[in-house]
Amino acid sequence: MEIKIMKNILDRNQNKAEEVRGLLKSKNVMMVNIISSPGAGKTTLLERTCEVLGSKFRIGVIEGDITTDRDARRLKKFNIPIVVINTEGGCHLDSHSISKVLDSFSLDDLDVLFVENVGNLICPSQFDLGETFKLAIISTAEGDDKPAKYPMLFREAKAVLLNKIDLLPYTNFNKLSFLKDLRNINGQVPVFEISCTSGEGLKAWFKWIEEQINAR
Amino acid sequence: MEIKIMKNILDRNQNKAEEVRGLLKSKNVMMVNIISSPGAGKTTLLERTCEVLGSKFRIGVIEGDITTDRDARRLKKFNIPIVVINTEGGCHLDSHSISKVLDSFSLDDLDVLFVENVGNLICPSQFDLGETFKLAIISTAEGDDKPAKYPMLFREAKAVLLNKIDLLPYTNFNKLSFLKDLRNINGQVPVFEISCTSGEGLKAWFKWIEEQINAR
Repeated sequence: MEIKIMKNILDRNQNKAEEVRGLLKSKNVMMVNIISSPGAGKTTLLERTCEVLGSKFRIGVIEGDITTDRDARRLKKFNIPIVVINTEGGCHLDSHSISKVLDSFSLDDLDVLFVENVGNLICPSQFDLGETFKLAIISTAEGDDKPAKYPMLFREAKAVLLNKIDLLPYTNFNKLSFLKDLRNINGQVPVFEISCTSGEGLKAWFKWIEEQINAR
Repeated sequence: MEIKIMKNILDRNQNKAEEVRGLLKSKNVMMVNIISSPGAGKTTLLERTCEVLGSKFRIGVIEGDITTDRDARRLKKFNIPIVVINTEGGCHLDSHSISKVLDSFSLDDLDVLFVENVGNLICPSQFDLGETFKLAIISTAEGDDKPAKYPMLFREAKAVLLNKIDLLPYTNFNKLSFLKDLRNINGQVPVFEISCTSGEGLKAWFKWIEEQINAR
């Protein structure tokens, strides 16, 4: 019975996701669904990205959090449209919650909408939000075994950001193992080694995301 | 409708959890439900703990993972009973899966059963497994805002391990903010600052967990 209920939930989510995708396409807005463990650096990536691309593109943000608006408050300084979705215990966003808040944005005035999903490597990858693509972030401090142990996200991501590369010397993270496991799951996915705090490697990320926005 | 279904699932889980708790109590086995984000150090904590307490107590382990037996393989060297539960996409263990695998253990020959839950700060804290208590692990690399943003686990935990304390100098983790937020949620919970790789602070953890086992 639970399997049938789960299938119904996913089917309803998928239908609404296609509706959201159609609407965003008609408005020429790219939506990026950013997924990672708690504390891998989603908000700091958005801070760096708004700093550099905020003058070139019209950016909007949806902040998914269980509770609090702490992440949103970190982005207020950029004067961009931000909407917070508090899931009140829910472990992922879904397409219905996204659909509801899209009314709060003036979509004609946006190029890209970043969705910071709830910090969770599992369920967010199972719920299509109507995004243009998913972006995976993983921190070196989490260990090199994450693609093998949590394959769903890494299979679906259009790009993988290996963040906190500045911590690499202080961890036992094995980059070769990480890449080997990742390549087994998603052979061609681009990987960017970055540090959102030191700035290392971010230029390649900015170039790539800019290309994606321009090609939307 | 979804709320009613969720309530049914949680009710059924709670009933089975009480059954598990009763069984373990009758066998004088303490069960610890270890919960953290992916890569916070659950398995490494178990390695260090088995090294030091393996000669004093009869330890068993249940390894919860979405897929793979990688964590279990890291513990094989201790020659202790280990059972792997692969959730196949499920984001948490539940009491039914625990109940099923308890048959694989000789409970009369155990003092403590550590359950390494699926790496996830959210759902595992909502499903009682029949454990004696929950243990929260958080790594300094995840940031100091986690208790405020993911309060459920920190409210329920009997102890909090702040792991990767060796990485503290290389992060912007603010220990005062962390403790202030944590104290707002769970005023009296003991906090152990540890590094499972350098060994720093582990003595206090060993002493505490030994006291818990002896007092069971």
